[in-house]
Amino acid sequence: MPSISKKGQQLPPSPIRKLVPFAEAAKLRGTKVIHLNIGQPDIASPKVALDAIRNLDRTVIEYSHSAGYESYRKGLATYYQGVGVDVTHEQILITNGGSEALLFGMMACFEPGDELIIPEPFYANYNSFAMAAGVTVVPLRTVIEDGFTLPPISAFEALITPRTKGILICNPGNPTGRIYGEDELDRLRDIVKKHDLFLFADEVYREFCYDGATHISAMALDGIDQQVVLIDSVSKRYSMCGARVGALVTKNSELYDAVLKFAQARLSPPTFGQIASEAALKTPASYFTDVITEYKERRDILVKGLNTIPGVVCPEPNGAFYCLVELPIDDSDRFCQWLLEEFDWNGHTVMMAPATGFYAKPETGIRQVRLAYVLKKDLLATAVECLRQALIAYPGTVK
Amino acid sequence: MPSISKKGQQLPPSPIRKLVPFAEAAKLRGTKVIHLNIGQPDIASPKVALDAIRNLDRTVIEYSHSAGYESYRKGLATYYQGVGVDVTHEQILITNGGSEALLFGMMACFEPGDELIIPEPFYANYNSFAMAAGVTVVPLRTVIEDGFTLPPISAFEALITPRTKGILICNPGNPTGRIYGEDELDRLRDIVKKHDLFLFADEVYREFCYDGATHISAMALDGIDQQVVLIDSVSKRYSMCGARVGALVTKNSELYDAVLKFAQARLSPPTFGQIASEAALKTPASYFTDVITEYKERRDILVKGLNTIPGVVCPEPNGAFYCLVELPIDDSDRFCQWLLEEFDWNGHTVMMAPATGFYAKPETGIRQVRLAYVLKKDLLATAVECLRQALIAYPGTVK
Repeated sequence: MPSISKKGQQLPPSPIRKLVPFAEAAKLRGTKVIHLNIGQPDIASPKVALDAIRNLDRTVIEYSHSAGYESYRKGLATYYQGVGVDVTHEQILITNGGSEALLFGMMACFEPGDELIIPEPFYANYNSFAMAAGVTVVPLRTVIEDGFTLPPISAFEALITPRTKGILICNPGNPTGRIYGEDELDRLRDIVKKHDLFLFADEVYREFCYDGATHISAMALDGIDQQVVLIDSVSKRYSMCGARVGALVTKNSELYDAVLKFAQARLSPPTFGQIASEAALKTPASYFTDVITEYKERRDILVKGLNTIPGVVCPEPNGAFYCLVELPIDDSDRFCQWLLEEFDWNGHTVMMAPATGFYAKPETGIRQVRLAYVLKKDLLATAVECLRQALIAYPGTVK
Repeated sequence: MPSISKKGQQLPPSPIRKLVPFAEAAKLRGTKVIHLNIGQPDIASPKVALDAIRNLDRTVIEYSHSAGYESYRKGLATYYQGVGVDVTHEQILITNGGSEALLFGMMACFEPGDELIIPEPFYANYNSFAMAAGVTVVPLRTVIEDGFTLPPISAFEALITPRTKGILICNPGNPTGRIYGEDELDRLRDIVKKHDLFLFADEVYREFCYDGATHISAMALDGIDQQVVLIDSVSKRYSMCGARVGALVTKNSELYDAVLKFAQARLSPPTFGQIASEAALKTPASYFTDVITEYKERRDILVKGLNTIPGVVCPEPNGAFYCLVELPIDDSDRFCQWLLEEFDWNGHTVMMAPATGFYAKPETGIRQVRLAYVLKKDLLATAVECLRQALIAYPGTVK
């Protein structure tokens, strides 16, 4: 029997999905599992988007243009202009979710062996796309003690080698919930300019800013417009994770043409998802006001609650819908599995993502977990109480 | 400005799409372009599938399982059992079209530098996925004179090196329209077994067999069930190219687990497309009877018509909906572009795919084009007359 590839063997299992079998077993035992492991919101998708699908008037479900429907890209360009990103529809390429934008972007920019600096903790799947493209991820530590602020230029420069070809940021951040300030972005711009790097900016949580925080797009930074690769998606914005509609945005026409060739090879992004996404551009502003108010209230319940538990440290995130939490435990993988296998409180337990998957060296995240506040407030309050009790009962709690 | 990757530079433009700007220009001049360049059928998608979309009763468009909805995979397993492929839903992984199945399959099976033998002419995008995975394509010539029959074992063995790790076939064939017979498949099985190779079998045209030809799946070949990687898609079967729902099927659990990790990294295949595809499993048999009758009649008009044009050679294909045609011309790229730029007959012209894109060395296909008989019979008859007149008028016609 032929052996599978090294990539196939070495690719890590998804940290947000690897515990799913234990969650299934818990449900079979009758325990209600509160799913805070994955960014799958319970928020309704916009009615205009669902109506467009229900009113489908086509008889043949055809391929779209490989870069996505022109009408959708034109609508999206208008949306971007409204958020301070000045692009045309010819600088936008629609992808199968933000995931494909990341994969195609990396394959088009980097040679195997090139190095990509990513502030850690970072979204675990960046590792997988980098591995698929043969790119070496170079983590740049940010720490929970100062709320995951980007470090000074010297910290970046200490990591730069002749193979460094790019920096990847997620802003607002998954898993940290941090929104980068103007000073942090200016620092990034200076490094990217000085060392002639690509700057990948994953901004899929753009809408989710709290406490008056303002999101600044990497596309709005001066002097690096040929170097910025914007990654976007409708998944979180419209709670349409299953539509699988993302985008890669670049003003670099050589790069755009290269990405388009990868896109042509896979023919087209999904037609149904694009129909829903184009219609979603007409989502009323009140939808976002309501959703953002809801997320902020959820954050407050979760973060305030967690910080009342002895030994728990949770910096208050001001964006996205995640928080990264330090727990007084021996091992987050073991604790998260134990919660599903051994624990319940009033018939409930909590599923979380061990933060080991969000660091280049898993042991860095051994006392941390990520929680997504994507469920209703009463469930979040229950989750906090579950965790409080679990940390009393868990044999690996560090007193 | 940082340079883009070599892959990004070297990936060839899609042979079926590179002439699109010329077609657009022809339309602006008022010429009606008959699109035979791309396998985008005008056949209606099944009503059951469209109805499922129109009756959507969800409020949140969520991710599905990374391997696709279990209910869909179970339905698909039943479908496969009906076509002689004995698999369970745990051996099926739903992908973003057959394209993603090819890419993930190659990344999971092959190291960069491994060699993959593909009988040529072959579907151009195999090249792109191989390039993305770093795999070297080794073409095995088949020729128009004997209708693209697979050559004897000795021809395969002449190409095998220590880096050979797989063979990829498309059956029924795009662009040839050939259905491999039992003897050809037995030969393949023997080579795959003897040299311990993976056999990728792209069978997305399974339903489209004419003149009593029977399709035999590679999954039904004895003794290589751990080595076969079946690539499938709903695109052609249900004329739902835009649904972007494909599948990778393997009985090799180690390989399945590796592909699943790539699938987890990109989260999930499209939810809407899967809803339509699951419903499409209930498509009545009469739909296929009608569609196959229609394609057979289209083939007859096109192939018989083409063979009445002096100097044109078109073997009669018995599967899929393509034919590969030898023309008395100097250069198929030039001719196809000339048809769009300079020619019309009664206000019509024809868009075709130059076969240069279907061979490892483009010059091998310099006198050949691929036509997809995916349009109505009267348009195909017009296309034949267009070509007859065009070959009289074209300055590069070889007399």
